[in-house]
Amino acid sequence: MAAAVVANGKKKLEQIGPKIGVISGPTNPMVTPLLTDLYQFTVAYAYWKDGKHNERAVFDLYFRKNPFGGEYTIFAGLEECIKFIAHYKLTEDEIAFIRKSLPPSCEDAFYNYLRGIDCSDVEIFSIPEGSVVFPKVPLMRIEGSIAVVQLLETALVNLINYASLVTTNAARHRFVAGKSKLLLEFGLRRAQGPDGGVSASKYCYMGGFDATSNVAAGKLFGIPLRGTHSHAFVSSFMSLDEITERSLKHLDSPKVCKDFVCPVKMWLTKLKRSRLLGGIFSETNQSELAAFASYGLAFPGSFLALVDTYDVMRSGVPNFCAVALALNDLGYRAVGIRLDSGDLAYQSCEARKFFQTIEKEFGVLGFGKMNITASNDLNEETLDALKKQGHEVDSFGIGTHLVTCYAQPALGVVFKLVEINNQPRIKLSEDVTKVSIPCKKRCFRLYGKEGYPLVDIMTGENEPPPKVGERILCRHPFTESKRAYVVPQRVEELFKCFWPGSSDKIREDLPPLKDIRERCIEQLEQMRPDHMRRLNPTPYKVSVSAKLYDFIHFLWLNEAPVGELQ
Amino acid sequence: MAAAVVANGKKKLEQIGPKIGVISGPTNPMVTPLLTDLYQFTVAYAYWKDGKHNERAVFDLYFRKNPFGGEYTIFAGLEECIKFIAHYKLTEDEIAFIRKSLPPSCEDAFYNYLRGIDCSDVEIFSIPEGSVVFPKVPLMRIEGSIAVVQLLETALVNLINYASLVTTNAARHRFVAGKSKLLLEFGLRRAQGPDGGVSASKYCYMGGFDATSNVAAGKLFGIPLRGTHSHAFVSSFMSLDEITERSLKHLDSPKVCKDFVCPVKMWLTKLKRSRLLGGIFSETNQSELAAFASYGLAFPGSFLALVDTYDVMRSGVPNFCAVALALNDLGYRAVGIRLDSGDLAYQSCEARKFFQTIEKEFGVLGFGKMNITASNDLNEETLDALKKQGHEVDSFGIGTHLVTCYAQPALGVVFKLVEINNQPRIKLSEDVTKVSIPCKKRCFRLYGKEGYPLVDIMTGENEPPPKVGERILCRHPFTESKRAYVVPQRVEELFKCFWPGSSDKIREDLPPLKDIRERCIEQLEQMRPDHMRRLNPTPYKVSVSAKLYDFIHFLWLNEAPVGELQ
Repeated sequence: MAAAVVANGKKKLEQIGPKIGVISGPTNPMVTPLLTDLYQFTVAYAYWKDGKHNERAVFDLYFRKNPFGGEYTIFAGLEECIKFIAHYKLTEDEIAFIRKSLPPSCEDAFYNYLRGIDCSDVEIFSIPEGSVVFPKVPLMRIEGSIAVVQLLETALVNLINYASLVTTNAARHRFVAGKSKLLLEFGLRRAQGPDGGVSASKYCYMGGFDATSNVAAGKLFGIPLRGTHSHAFVSSFMSLDEITERSLKHLDSPKVCKDFVCPVKMWLTKLKRSRLLGGIFSETNQSELAAFASYGLAFPGSFLALVDTYDVMRSGVPNFCAVALALNDLGYRAVGIRLDSGDLAYQSCEARKFFQTIEKEFGVLGFGKMNITASNDLNEETLDALKKQGHEVDSFGIGTHLVTCYAQPALGVVFKLVEINNQPRIKLSEDVTKVSIPCKKRCFRLYGKEGYPLVDIMTGENEPPPKVGERILCRHPFTESKRAYVVPQRVEELFKCFWPGSSDKIREDLPPLKDIRERCIEQLEQMRPDHMRRLNPTPYKVSVSAKLYDFIHFLWLNEAPVGELQ
Repeated sequence: MAAAVVANGKKKLEQIGPKIGVISGPTNPMVTPLLTDLYQFTVAYAYWKDGKHNERAVFDLYFRKNPFGGEYTIFAGLEECIKFIAHYKLTEDEIAFIRKSLPPSCEDAFYNYLRGIDCSDVEIFSIPEGSVVFPKVPLMRIEGSIAVVQLLETALVNLINYASLVTTNAARHRFVAGKSKLLLEFGLRRAQGPDGGVSASKYCYMGGFDATSNVAAGKLFGIPLRGTHSHAFVSSFMSLDEITERSLKHLDSPKVCKDFVCPVKMWLTKLKRSRLLGGIFSETNQSELAAFASYGLAFPGSFLALVDTYDVMRSGVPNFCAVALALNDLGYRAVGIRLDSGDLAYQSCEARKFFQTIEKEFGVLGFGKMNITASNDLNEETLDALKKQGHEVDSFGIGTHLVTCYAQPALGVVFKLVEINNQPRIKLSEDVTKVSIPCKKRCFRLYGKEGYPLVDIMTGENEPPPKVGERILCRHPFTESKRAYVVPQRVEELFKCFWPGSSDKIREDLPPLKDIRERCIEQLEQMRPDHMRRLNPTPYKVSVSAKLYDFIHFLWLNEAPVGELQ
């Protein structure tokens, strides 16, 4: 990407070339080194001016509170971060703009310094994408020259924040809907901008959705695509006369039905006269019937109709069945219906009864199992309410609430300095939950006898790691009284090296989206059920080692001013 | 863009070339014809298969409810829509992907049809961007071949939805903050994805913000940039010894201060010993002092410090003042401080007193007027609460709540068919507020004697327009009893032609962002104050002509099935 156009950056990028491997640039070409806050450049200048810019610093990227009132979060966005890092290079044009944006008193040599910057000396350890994660435990640990790492901050936080939020939201929707339902993401039109839409599709799939309506996301990420037709399609028809191309070949024979509208009309009459179905409807809407017949002609093998344009049970469902039964006569199986308004639980049950009656009365095997998709402003609460009421919906199409994370549209991911020149640093705050945990750290997940994760523990980089079968004291980072001994049955080191910088560590491959999705689903299944409850879930424990605890509090006292009451 | 690579689309695009004029492609390269729902392509196929694809259709793009509990909305996103339209052209690669995504039974000739599609025959009338708009009144009227217009739907809705929402949110923040405050958008890191961030910056500026921290947005749109430094910058310092480059030239003379740290220390001692300031603080944090001194050395002409890393009044403000006063001795004026936590009202008042005391005691003219910026999870409510408490903040930096539209993260923009082949169409719903208003329409804003807009009225395309001084009946579109006579003092036609298609109408130019921003500010000022209140605002009236009213209800009765109570 940038490398191709920046002549003087070429050499260095070539050096890190082998490390990039096949890492392509960010999915969104707008993710450039300028996707950052101005103060990252002013601070870089101040570091540079003071000769401090190359001091080695360690930053933690983490969040402080699980979203949506839950007790877990899914970590997502790592791949995009690594793509950004791998191609980080300021172009001349970008440098010219930075120069224009800083005071004219800034020295020229600084821009030469910017010209030379890339991420060949940055080291990123991270929890793998698609993992279940918890507050305060760093998702990523970024180490490098302080000026360079700060220049990365805003983009990294941006790329992780929404990605993790919407993946978590998708996972929560999946949890409520249950494993057996098909979940479709329909949010593009309501998303916060074009790439809000595209990344929502990616991360909802990661979080457990089955498909998206978003064609661009299908192409970019290989996500299965789904879609039916719109209300406008239905209301664009006036009558059956508009159907000009009416012939349809039998599926399994060379026979051709010359006027498909005939069997459709015939079936509608049959349904109307049926003893069991009679009375449910009288005259159906003819524009709707025309639209369905036309759609059936276009997609005989995958006929799915939106049935709520006029009236679900008095028009949409009978019209759909007439077309589906006519298709059935030609050997085709209709897929089903979509409900997009009204009482979805009730309508789905009524539609199911209608389908089952047809199966019985006309002996159409499998007709009762017709797919019912529901959409219309669905969210966790309505999915939950539907489940409690009882319904016959097989697939849910979810849009606005899912992709905009309506229940909580932002995750507070932060990026804090924890060490510089091997000196641990702490960020204090009057609000204890905002105090940062200092030191370059390692993080472990300890598993109990039943195979569930019990607690995450952070230790200093050079402490001996927790060992299977060995008792270890896990302390709450800030509250003295909260601590527990744990004898782990399994110890998982959470960080893996995703960008080795100038070190000779092995870089973890970026797995394909499907694998990340599977990881996510597996990790969620592994959790103890009480952490996953929608209401009053049990908080998962996050801790520090005894040594790190002591160190935090030593540093804290050291930095905090002593008050004077007056 | 696309035009350059699609050989067989070239000719047609050349024909519409003069109409594109200088319209560049979408800001985000991800805005392509694939940024749409799959069903737009399935529906296009069904239209095409039935020979219906070229039927002339009219769609309205509108929303049903103002966001944030308010009674107004700002329309934004038009420019991006026109850029999308102007360059609409499917590439071979995109067509190949669509072919892969549709059933194999779809006929080949359809893809040839897709190959030939562009927007040379689409006509777009729209309210100008930056206008105050209201529910139900179409923001855009899109006319063209039904298949083509439907293919545009999802992208247009996506581009308008968030743009209008966040512009409205920005305007509401401006309204609460008042005209005199400087409003800075700081949301990039918490936005919903990279272009959530970039477009938030654009539209917050449009809605009345003064600047952004987002460098990419500064470059793309020419928005003024602002920024200070981070907490990490402060905590990266340990002591004053780290400042290696200490010399600073006087602003207006060739004299050089060889060790800037000396006057800083001297001033800190002076402040500590001051009779009036004494007791407020004792020992300040020395790492913070070092960070400020270093930042002052880097930016002597624009020194602004974040003062809450350790303790605002016992460390941050005195340290800032020591550096600011040392700079002052060399002829430089510091800009001010930023508060990012705690009780902003109280802290700003305390800081202001401190500055004013310094101005008096040490005779530093203007020091009392030092700029105070506040940030930290601000939103409409906190701005309002701050105003009620009384504060001394001059600028607000607003992020998360602003850019994610936390109070309501989605606007329900819809896109409805209102006419096909000159036949008006209506979309019914059990929920009356969801019934669409049929017919190709014109829309007018009627102004009263005092210059305020009184009511918006929609009429059929061919009705005589409302006239100044002539009484006209304005009817609520759905409620029979709600109607009023109006004698307008001014009549403004709301739609202008922004994309003339194959007609010879004149295309409105796309104004520069600054002009749209001014339009927005002017339009807001023009509104009657009771519509703008935060609490219980008066709804602005939206109406239809008597003729259109009768027609809606005729069509409604015609389409709705008659129920049977059982």
